[in-house]
Amino acid sequence: MTTTVNALSVSEASGPFERTSIDRRDLRPHDVRIDIRYAGICHSDIHQARDEWGGAIFPMVPGHEIVGTVAETGPEVTGLKEGDTVGVGCFVDSCLECEACRDGEEQFCERGVVQTYNSTEYDGEVTYGGYSQQVVVRDHFVLRIPDGVDLAETTPLLCAGITTYAPLKRYGAGPGKRVGVVGMGGLGHVAVKIAAALGAEVSVLSRTDRKREDGLAFGARHYYATEDEGVFEELAGSFDLIVNTVGAGVDLDAFFGLLNRGGTMVNLGAPSELQPFNIFSLLTMRRNYAGSMVGGLPETQEMLDFCAEHGIGATVEVIRADQVGEYYDRVVSGDVRYRAVIDVASLEG
Amino acid sequence: MTTTVNALSVSEASGPFERTSIDRRDLRPHDVRIDIRYAGICHSDIHQARDEWGGAIFPMVPGHEIVGTVAETGPEVTGLKEGDTVGVGCFVDSCLECEACRDGEEQFCERGVVQTYNSTEYDGEVTYGGYSQQVVVRDHFVLRIPDGVDLAETTPLLCAGITTYAPLKRYGAGPGKRVGVVGMGGLGHVAVKIAAALGAEVSVLSRTDRKREDGLAFGARHYYATEDEGVFEELAGSFDLIVNTVGAGVDLDAFFGLLNRGGTMVNLGAPSELQPFNIFSLLTMRRNYAGSMVGGLPETQEMLDFCAEHGIGATVEVIRADQVGEYYDRVVSGDVRYRAVIDVASLEG
Repeated sequence: MTTTVNALSVSEASGPFERTSIDRRDLRPHDVRIDIRYAGICHSDIHQARDEWGGAIFPMVPGHEIVGTVAETGPEVTGLKEGDTVGVGCFVDSCLECEACRDGEEQFCERGVVQTYNSTEYDGEVTYGGYSQQVVVRDHFVLRIPDGVDLAETTPLLCAGITTYAPLKRYGAGPGKRVGVVGMGGLGHVAVKIAAALGAEVSVLSRTDRKREDGLAFGARHYYATEDEGVFEELAGSFDLIVNTVGAGVDLDAFFGLLNRGGTMVNLGAPSELQPFNIFSLLTMRRNYAGSMVGGLPETQEMLDFCAEHGIGATVEVIRADQVGEYYDRVVSGDVRYRAVIDVASLEG
Repeated sequence: MTTTVNALSVSEASGPFERTSIDRRDLRPHDVRIDIRYAGICHSDIHQARDEWGGAIFPMVPGHEIVGTVAETGPEVTGLKEGDTVGVGCFVDSCLECEACRDGEEQFCERGVVQTYNSTEYDGEVTYGGYSQQVVVRDHFVLRIPDGVDLAETTPLLCAGITTYAPLKRYGAGPGKRVGVVGMGGLGHVAVKIAAALGAEVSVLSRTDRKREDGLAFGARHYYATEDEGVFEELAGSFDLIVNTVGAGVDLDAFFGLLNRGGTMVNLGAPSELQPFNIFSLLTMRRNYAGSMVGGLPETQEMLDFCAEHGIGATVEVIRADQVGEYYDRVVSGDVRYRAVIDVASLEG
C-alpha cells in the first residue's frame, strides 16, 4: 500500500545524515505523486535537524523547498498531470475551511498547518520532506513551476522566495521606496533580487564588505558594511522598509534608527534569544516592527510567476546528497553563495 | 520687554512644587498670548519633573495640556482674536519647512520640535509650560477649542486625546474592528471613549476588575481583568488592534498572543526598561508592534473637532495649584479618576 523511496535522514538531534528508505503513501483522490529533482537547504532545516527550536521529531527527513515532476495524480486532481513541473514549499496540508485558509494564508490555518516535514498529518502520520526521491502531496499544496526557468535556481524560491516576497509586497516595496535588506545570505540575496525587480531602491546592509560586488549585481543600488564606522549615523532615517533576514540577534535599536517616519522593519529570521530594545526607538518617528512567516499558496504561485517573468532565481550551489552534512556547517558559517540545492538524482542506487 | 506671571515650578529632580514667577516674552508678529484657564497633569510631566528620562532642565514649569483664552495677538496673526478659546499641546514651535512639518507631523520635525516645557526655543530660551497664568505661543501651534465643550474635560485631550486618536485612526479602528485598550488610566480611558466613538468594538484590558463599571460607561463593549486566570487563553487571537497605554513594562508576548492575523499592537506609554520578547510572537500570524507619539497640529485640530462632535472629554478631577504634588503621587499609584486638571485661577494672588 505504499511506495518505498530513498531518502536522507537524521535520527537524533545534530546527528549525521544517513541514507535510508521511507514509505510514501498510495494516492488519495486529491494526491499528487512527485518525482523530486531538487531539494533546497534552508537555514530552518538546520535549526530543526539540530532541534534548536524544540519539539523535533526523529528520524527526520528535512526539505521544504522541492521541485520535481508529477509522476501520478489521484482521480480527483484537476489542473495537474503526469510530466508537469511542480514545486512544494513549507506546507502539505491545512483545513482549507478556516478564515485564514479561505483568505489564502494557509500558513496561519486555525487547525494548524501540516508542515512538509517534522510535523504530523491530520491522520497522525509523521511528514518527511524533500531530501528524498518522491513526495506525495495534496493537490492544493502543489505549485506550478513556469516554463523555461532554471529548476535548481527556482527551488529555493519555494521558501526563501515567498518569505521575502510576501513582506516586500505587504509593506509596499516598489518605485520611490527605499528598502534596506539586512544580511545577504540565503534569504537576503533573494530579497535583494525581488525588491529590485519590484522597483524599489535597494540597499544591502551586510556586516562586512565581502559581498559588495554580488549585492550590486543582484540589483542593489547601494551596499553598506555595517561594521564600518559611522554607517548608522550616515543612514539614520533613510529607509521606508527594512527586511531583516538575519537569524541571529541584531542591535534592534540601531536598525530602528535607520527607518524614516512611519517606517517598518520586518523580521524574517527567528533568533532564539529574546529581543530587547528601547521602546523609544519605535515611539520616535512612529516606527513599526513586524514579523512575517512565509506566505500562503496563492501568493506563492504569484511569486513564482513574478520571478519567472523577471528572470529571478536564487544563486545556488548544486550539491550531492553525501555533501549535505558538510553544507549544513557551511550554511551556519555563512560560507555558501548563496543557497545549497541537493540534486536528488544523487540519492539513486 | 516681558510680562511676569505666576507659575508652579520644581527646582530639582523630584523636588517639591513651589509658587514662583516667570517671564513671558513680548509678542512677536506671529505670537498669541493666552490667559490659561486649565492645565492638565500628564504622566509624562511626572517622568520629566523627576528626571526619569534624563536631560531635564530645572527649574521646570510642566504642563503641555493647556486651555485658555486669547489675551492678545501679534500683528501678523490671522484667524485668532482676543477672547477666542484656544488650546496648546505638547509643542510650541518647529521649523515648518521640513518634510515632516509640511506633512503636518510637526512632532517629527527634522530640526527638532520645541516642546512646550523642558525644552529650548530656537533662540535658546528655555520653555515653561502650562502650570502658569499665561503662555505666549506661535500661532501655528495654537488650536481652536470648539464652542460648547466643557473646558476642563477638554484640556487633557491636548495630549491624551491626540496620543490615542492618532494611532486609532492610523491602524483603522472603526466599525467591524476589535480594539483592545491595555490600561485604563489617563490615556486609556480616553482611548476607550474615542475608539468607541469611531465605531470599533472596544475591550478594556485592565489589571483588575476595579474599573469595570467605568469602562463600560465609557463605551467599551467588554471588560477583562488580566489578572484573572485564563483571560489570555480565552482572548487569544481576538484583536485587530491593541493600544497599550501602560507606562510600565508589560508581558509583551502575552499581549501579542491576543492579536489576530496581521494585528497590530501600538505602544503609547514609554517604559524606561528594555522590552524583551520572543520574535516568534510576531512571526506567528505576521503581527506588528508599533510606536506612536502624540500627533501633528492638523490631526490635533481634527481630534478636537471629532471629540466635540461626539461629546467626548476626559473624565477629570479639577484641582488647585497647591494639590499638584499630592496628585503626582496619586497619578503614579493609579489613584486618579481619570485625569487631574489644574484650575489655574488658583495661581492668582
